[in-house]
Amino acid sequence: MRVLGIDPGTAVTGYGVVRREGTGIALSECGVIRTKAREPLASRLEEIYEGVRELIARHKPDAVAVEDVFYARNVRTTVVLGHARGVILLAAQQAGLPLHEMPPAVIKKAVTGTGNATKEQVQFMVAKLLRLKKAPEPADASDGVAAALACCMAPVLPSVADALAALPRARAMRT
Amino acid sequence: MRVLGIDPGTAVTGYGVVRREGTGIALSECGVIRTKAREPLASRLEEIYEGVRELIARHKPDAVAVEDVFYARNVRTTVVLGHARGVILLAAQQAGLPLHEMPPAVIKKAVTGTGNATKEQVQFMVAKLLRLKKAPEPADASDGVAAALACCMAPVLPSVADALAALPRARAMRT
Repeated sequence: MRVLGIDPGTAVTGYGVVRREGTGIALSECGVIRTKAREPLASRLEEIYEGVRELIARHKPDAVAVEDVFYARNVRTTVVLGHARGVILLAAQQAGLPLHEMPPAVIKKAVTGTGNATKEQVQFMVAKLLRLKKAPEPADASDGVAAALACCMAPVLPSVADALAALPRARAMRT
Repeated sequence: MRVLGIDPGTAVTGYGVVRREGTGIALSECGVIRTKAREPLASRLEEIYEGVRELIARHKPDAVAVEDVFYARNVRTTVVLGHARGVILLAAQQAGLPLHEMPPAVIKKAVTGTGNATKEQVQFMVAKLLRLKKAPEPADASDGVAAALACCMAPVLPSVADALAALPRARAMRT
């Protein structure tokens, strides 16, 4: 099972691809999709959409895990973030992939054991769980990896069970 | 000049296509893209995206006018609406079309003369300006038409001037 995890953002969208390997989990790739602040929103959305489509084409994940909107931020920022999430969900849907949406606190809890972990704690545990010498940089990339890890590590949650149940269908739609 | 106006919504996205005809403006088509509430958000976003792409392919507009988010609503609703706007902006961007984003009050003012007009006033003026026997139904369709009208009727606004300036490029990108 291979999962693409995404931490959406209009300026920086973090991502990570992890795969189950025997009894452990290994990192395939992580990084960020960066857009230019001076570009119009529509053009930045296209870059994010193309970036996610390219990742799906390259890694052929079995599921996509996307961090949910964090509502405590500034409303305007949150709404613009909604635009970015929209084109990410669209890319996953078009690839016929099961989608796993998780609030930041659920991802943090799955990876560190506590829902209000700091960015540093998340980075530390991401490195630990994947046996990396140091945590992925920038923190957005770590957050993308954390989303993928949370999806892999919680196969008892109903939503992941749904994702697993949907796998043969998703594979069929790709071929 | 032909303009596609859109009033975004996850459940109902209203649209209208208007064209300049001599000294007046005529309606080419209007309607709504309706999605099912029981479908997952990603699937609804795909329907909206495909619907807008189909409208662009059929009418070959010179510009797209999209109603801006109205921030006074419930925050969660507004963020979900942001997702829908995201895939609409993406469709316009992919077609290389100049995009004209307008707050609801600006559209209302352009069409009725007042920024706090009621839905009924907007519908009345849309019918009047386009010499229709009755206003487009549902109100979402009228709102889509109003966005297109506001874009057509306000060629002195800088953003529309930008849109007009960008037209040859947009045409070139389409051919």
